[in-house]
Amino acid sequence: MRFTSQTSLDGVTEQLFTLGEIPGVLWTPEDALGTRPLIVMGHGGGQHKKAPGILARARRFVTEGGFAVAAVDVPNHGERPKNEELDRIATENRARIAAGEDTAALVAAMHALVAGQVVAEWQAVLTAVQQLDHVGGGPVGYWGVSMGCGLGVPFVAAEPRVSAAVLGLLGSPALAETAARITVPVQFLVQWDDERAPRAQSLALFDAFGSAEKTLHANPGKHGDLPRFATDDSLRFFSRHLA
Amino acid sequence: MRFTSQTSLDGVTEQLFTLGEIPGVLWTPEDALGTRPLIVMGHGGGQHKKAPGILARARRFVTEGGFAVAAVDVPNHGERPKNEELDRIATENRARIAAGEDTAALVAAMHALVAGQVVAEWQAVLTAVQQLDHVGGGPVGYWGVSMGCGLGVPFVAAEPRVSAAVLGLLGSPALAETAARITVPVQFLVQWDDERAPRAQSLALFDAFGSAEKTLHANPGKHGDLPRFATDDSLRFFSRHLA
Repeated sequence: MRFTSQTSLDGVTEQLFTLGEIPGVLWTPEDALGTRPLIVMGHGGGQHKKAPGILARARRFVTEGGFAVAAVDVPNHGERPKNEELDRIATENRARIAAGEDTAALVAAMHALVAGQVVAEWQAVLTAVQQLDHVGGGPVGYWGVSMGCGLGVPFVAAEPRVSAAVLGLLGSPALAETAARITVPVQFLVQWDDERAPRAQSLALFDAFGSAEKTLHANPGKHGDLPRFATDDSLRFFSRHLA
Repeated sequence: MRFTSQTSLDGVTEQLFTLGEIPGVLWTPEDALGTRPLIVMGHGGGQHKKAPGILARARRFVTEGGFAVAAVDVPNHGERPKNEELDRIATENRARIAAGEDTAALVAAMHALVAGQVVAEWQAVLTAVQQLDHVGGGPVGYWGVSMGCGLGVPFVAAEPRVSAAVLGLLGSPALAETAARITVPVQFLVQWDDERAPRAQSLALFDAFGSAEKTLHANPGKHGDLPRFATDDSLRFFSRHLA
């Protein structure tokens, strides 16, 4: 793990790093000392580790919850080299969205293609980050919606160190079997008028989680319209389960 | 409005009252002075104004939110005289529940039968309670699930002083038109495995609210299994909208 920069702003220290070929970022409270809960965040399709929605939530998790937060670029995103096959699928996906066509099968195929690699990368990042003195081996949560849910479901199912997860903005019959292996508390976000994740498929994915404690939060609006108070809810959910 | 008793316990003052023929209870912070937000609570079928689920939530709303809370017995419940027709329907309803039969139409008929009277009574209680020095004319919220939702929907739709409502554990096509007239923020509670409120009808009722801000919170479990943290969520919802 190699740190390439460190800056601090309004109480949050941001460290950019690479772990092998993986570019990542770690946010911690400024002057943090000792072990604290860690939240791994997975970004959405076409986004990157410092996309506005990731950055804004990460800062709140750090300043209001005292958490450490780590995010990395998914293959073919952010600072990572283009992957021809993934790029072709992403281009077709954008075209289908623009045409108002159903994208569920294509999205599921894209996630399946990278899930194995991403799960292994996130596990390696988790191990590396938890060796740092100001993070340590505390409880771990996961936050990811849309593609961050499509890749987060296999990650949370595979990784026993994760003990609570916020997921959502996605429904996929292909994920049901993996979701059934998840038993940690889940907060699942649904946008009631989501133009990309059909409501029935989202409800079916919520149904599929094996967790005894799982809560669905549905709000009116489209895929990109998560209300601001949803982050309040995520913060309290993580505080309850990781504190 | 005639007060018949006043007791205080662990920071909460409880005043029993009658307003005409309506027996009610008002909870306020001990030694409360001046205006504060008020939450009107509607109890479930077969329950009463001081049923355990009402009392426990009311105490939290008072101690953790500083709210005043008022609840009254619905006709044919608690200290009110038996009403022959309502009693006959309630008896048939219990028999249908015991037999595992669908009760939606009967429940809707029962609620419709008393809704007009109940709405007028709750409005009168609201007016009377807000004239008290330690309650005053602050913002008003409503909390009610199951029958408390079946009667709460017409109350919230009719009463412009109510500016936020927690409802749920009920779905009824008969309520859709009234729900569409509600435009204040709504938090709607669904038990995913509710044996009395069919899931599809509950989702349809959530869909029907006219509110721009409405959030559905669904949790696994049956009609009576609302998780403890649902009250945390209600408290924060009221704090956000009534403070």
